[in-house]
Amino acid sequence: MSPTLAARLGHRFGDAALLRQALTHRSYGTPHNERLEFVGDAVLNCVVARALYERFPQTQEGDLSRTRASLVNQETLARVARRLGVGAALQLGEGELRSGGQERDSILADALEALFGAVFVDAGYPAARAVIEAAYEDLLHEADPAALAKDPKTRLQELLQARRMPVPEYAVVATHGEAHAQRFDVECRIVSMNVTTTGSGTSRRIAEQAAAAEALRAVAARGDRRA
Amino acid sequence: MSPTLAARLGHRFGDAALLRQALTHRSYGTPHNERLEFVGDAVLNCVVARALYERFPQTQEGDLSRTRASLVNQETLARVARRLGVGAALQLGEGELRSGGQERDSILADALEALFGAVFVDAGYPAARAVIEAAYEDLLHEADPAALAKDPKTRLQELLQARRMPVPEYAVVATHGEAHAQRFDVECRIVSMNVTTTGSGTSRRIAEQAAAAEALRAVAARGDRRA
Repeated sequence: MSPTLAARLGHRFGDAALLRQALTHRSYGTPHNERLEFVGDAVLNCVVARALYERFPQTQEGDLSRTRASLVNQETLARVARRLGVGAALQLGEGELRSGGQERDSILADALEALFGAVFVDAGYPAARAVIEAAYEDLLHEADPAALAKDPKTRLQELLQARRMPVPEYAVVATHGEAHAQRFDVECRIVSMNVTTTGSGTSRRIAEQAAAAEALRAVAARGDRRA
Repeated sequence: MSPTLAARLGHRFGDAALLRQALTHRSYGTPHNERLEFVGDAVLNCVVARALYERFPQTQEGDLSRTRASLVNQETLARVARRLGVGAALQLGEGELRSGGQERDSILADALEALFGAVFVDAGYPAARAVIEAAYEDLLHEADPAALAKDPKTRLQELLQARRMPVPEYAVVATHGEAHAQRFDVECRIVSMNVTTTGSGTSRRIAEQAAAAEALRAVAARGDRRA
């Protein structure tokens, strides 16, 4: 039905019905691709989790998790699906076809997950991993947990909230230079921990982030050992 | 460090440091088990998804997904962890130890996921699958998507919302019998589809569910082919 798509995925299906089912949207009839999408989503998350775990041995769980989310969200999946030409191979009901379903992110993303699921069911985990790693090769290569990391103010606030402590206070303690080239010094105070740090920058916002980054370092220096 | 727990899991670790790390809570120090928990959660979801897909060939994605959620939630994970005696093997900081961390659901659930992750990293997918399927053997055997299925009113509402149609209307059209033994007849109307069904029961709520179940059958009889 779509030998070229299978070739682009890099998998020769033992059971061609699985490929057909993966490409069948529920608007077309049954068997449609929703059950395969369920297993496909699972194996995709597993393969990407493991790949990120290996690739970023120093990165913490929260950043790995955010990085994975950016790789398996609907937008990224639809982008990968377009690159593989999934849209033209889809079986859609008349209504979906007329309304441009072949180009819709949600339909493309679901179909790509179903294709991964079909490979997983057809030939097991190693085959699914190979297909997913090939389809995601450049995205995995370019993945950068640091770029997706939350800003220091957000992380500091979350850290304190997780410890059920009050949020930090920020205050501008000095400004330097003339109006068109000002510099701000901001203090970040965590009263409950007796921590006060300073940051500076060309805007209040930037100075606050710098102070928060210092505060995060100060809190971390006290050790993970909370007991 | 904990040969008996490894034996109960049914895995002989090539890298014993992974087992130790999986059992180390962040309150104890680094390396702690949060990164392993990330890959463990992923491989657990994958193995359970595939097992449910095989075991329930007629069950739709939504019910498979709900069934999986019931198997991998914190409560179930903690129950499996207790059965395996994970608590006694944990490395916790003084504070967590004093406050009963060995028995806390969240800590036990995270550690069990980390143990699955450690097996996955140590010996690959087949080893992780074997350990997870053994730990979950009875739970997978007893899993019953039908028992977890949503009630008919909820399913009908979700179905219509997914098709961007107005919610159904329910109305009591007759009551029979005396106050202590009344029966209610309720109509369910889906105006936009020209569907009207009736249900009856000993309470308004039960009659509404019966009418909604009929409406679901009527809608399904029109076929999945919406176009």
